Amino acid sequence: VNLDSICIVGLGLIGGSFAKGLKQTGFNGTITGVFRTAEKGQRAIELGVVDKAETDLAKATSAADLVMLSVPMLSMREQLELIAPSLQPHTIVTDAGSVKTPFIKDAKDVLKDMSRVVPGHPIAGKEKSGIEVADAELYVDHRVLLTPSDETDQDAVDIVRGLWEQLGAVVECMSAEKHDAALAVTSHLPHVLAYATVDTLASRQELSEVFRYAAGGFQDFTRIASGEPIMWRDICLTNKAQVKIALDEFQAHLDVLKEAVNHGDADTIEAVFRRARDARETHVVKKL
Amino acid sequence: VNLDSICIVGLGLIGGSFAKGLKQTGFNGTITGVFRTAEKGQRAIELGVVDKAETDLAKATSAADLVMLSVPMLSMREQLELIAPSLQPHTIVTDAGSVKTPFIKDAKDVLKDMSRVVPGHPIAGKEKSGIEVADAELYVDHRVLLTPSDETDQDAVDIVRGLWEQLGAVVECMSAEKHDAALAVTSHLPHVLAYATVDTLASRQELSEVFRYAAGGFQDFTRIASGEPIMWRDICLTNKAQVKIALDEFQAHLDVLKEAVNHGDADTIEAVFRRARDARETHVVKKL
Repeated sequence: VNLDSICIVGLGLIGGSFAKGLKQTGFNGTITGVFRTAEKGQRAIELGVVDKAETDLAKATSAADLVMLSVPMLSMREQLELIAPSLQPHTIVTDAGSVKTPFIKDAKDVLKDMSRVVPGHPIAGKEKSGIEVADAELYVDHRVLLTPSDETDQDAVDIVRGLWEQLGAVVECMSAEKHDAALAVTSHLPHVLAYATVDTLASRQELSEVFRYAAGGFQDFTRIASGEPIMWRDICLTNKAQVKIALDEFQAHLDVLKEAVNHGDADTIEAVFRRARDARETHVVKKL
Repeated sequence: VNLDSICIVGLGLIGGSFAKGLKQTGFNGTITGVFRTAEKGQRAIELGVVDKAETDLAKATSAADLVMLSVPMLSMREQLELIAPSLQPHTIVTDAGSVKTPFIKDAKDVLKDMSRVVPGHPIAGKEKSGIEVADAELYVDHRVLLTPSDETDQDAVDIVRGLWEQLGAVVECMSAEKHDAALAVTSHLPHVLAYATVDTLASRQELSEVFRYAAGGFQDFTRIASGEPIMWRDICLTNKAQVKIALDEFQAHLDVLKEAVNHGDADTIEAVFRRARDARETHVVKKL
């Protein structure tokens, strides 16, 4: 398969950075973005994100050798339905969605043939979102997880893997189920907690004053609460079962600490803090 | 009062940075640190943190015009008892503890006379702790909250304020009660949640594998879980009432999200995420 034309649907930070990165690392073909208006497309060309802009989704995807869907999880199915009639048999369909089992279900329902479908998820982000902050180096040294099924053609997986590696990412294949369970605790749970924490402060009477005493630690802790509300809403809804499990596990651990605080149980508080600190030092800090 | 001699008790990141910063900004006197062993004292002198090292607490404080206590909250009272007999009448006693009402109670019980006591709290920290990472610029542009009472001499407050301002900090006075309530939500609550989150991941069977999929967002979210277990245990215990209130408020907000996830209530999830995102943009991001 020659990869002459890539079409990107959804040009926010994630899709935009994918497009911009490919252009800047010398992708030898045309990168077309699909936009709601010609103005938005023109802006993306000016920003160096895409080569061409289209407002007609079917026209854009019909000419593509590879389509990248980078839209909120609950918009995936509609986009698949819109592009399905115009896809060529050889066209690879990949995505950048944060939950993999629902994307696979949608793709199976809509496209039937999964041989050219390569589900993917780049584990990367930024405090700001939108095409204006698209960053050609966003994926350098970041992990990209691909969750192809047995039906997926190996050449399609290799092509998608090659694109991410061209952007500097470290690609790994795993099952969609394992992906969704792991990301529920490492990503989806922390997002829910960060949103809930900021919401707690925001409901205090002395609102702006309280925030004045928030230092760097709070700034870091709540950074992910600046994520796109729709994107994260969709993740919670489409990965509901795993997010629920993660929240229940967290609640059990939080309850231990709450009870220890209520009873002034110094040993338990210290033991949990120490265990958590050590786990973080061993598994998170040393890794980076 | 001439400030010829400052004595620091507790030379971790916070006390060490205070000492090192004063030396580097040209403090015109002697800075003495109190250490458990002569070797630790020698190391601190080599690191440029202090001018002199002492292992005899009473001897060190008896010669001081100002004593800075920078030890975990539950060690404050013992340190006050140890220094009380050797303090001169003019000696200022200040601290860097994260909870103010219990320090004031301890100081009143032990010292009786509060006229030279200036309770303080620098809102600053780092991922790493200990004297080795003491940083003369740690307090630049950081807030320092002082909570003097009506009994405190104004000249003592002014001297302590002057030292922090010499380090580049922004000093603000407020009541101890208001301090402890505000910090419970902006600092103590997030720490408990970060520790509980890492502890949740650490208890999963597939431990090291799960942490592999933790990206920058998780790294930021859990940074404060690298804090000193003893220091944070003591904060939770000494600010128990306010931490409990903050945890209960957080629980109510989390319960709304948990129920919304369980019921697939997209509107509620989106509304909370949007409100939190907007509050953070308005009150946290724009501030910095």
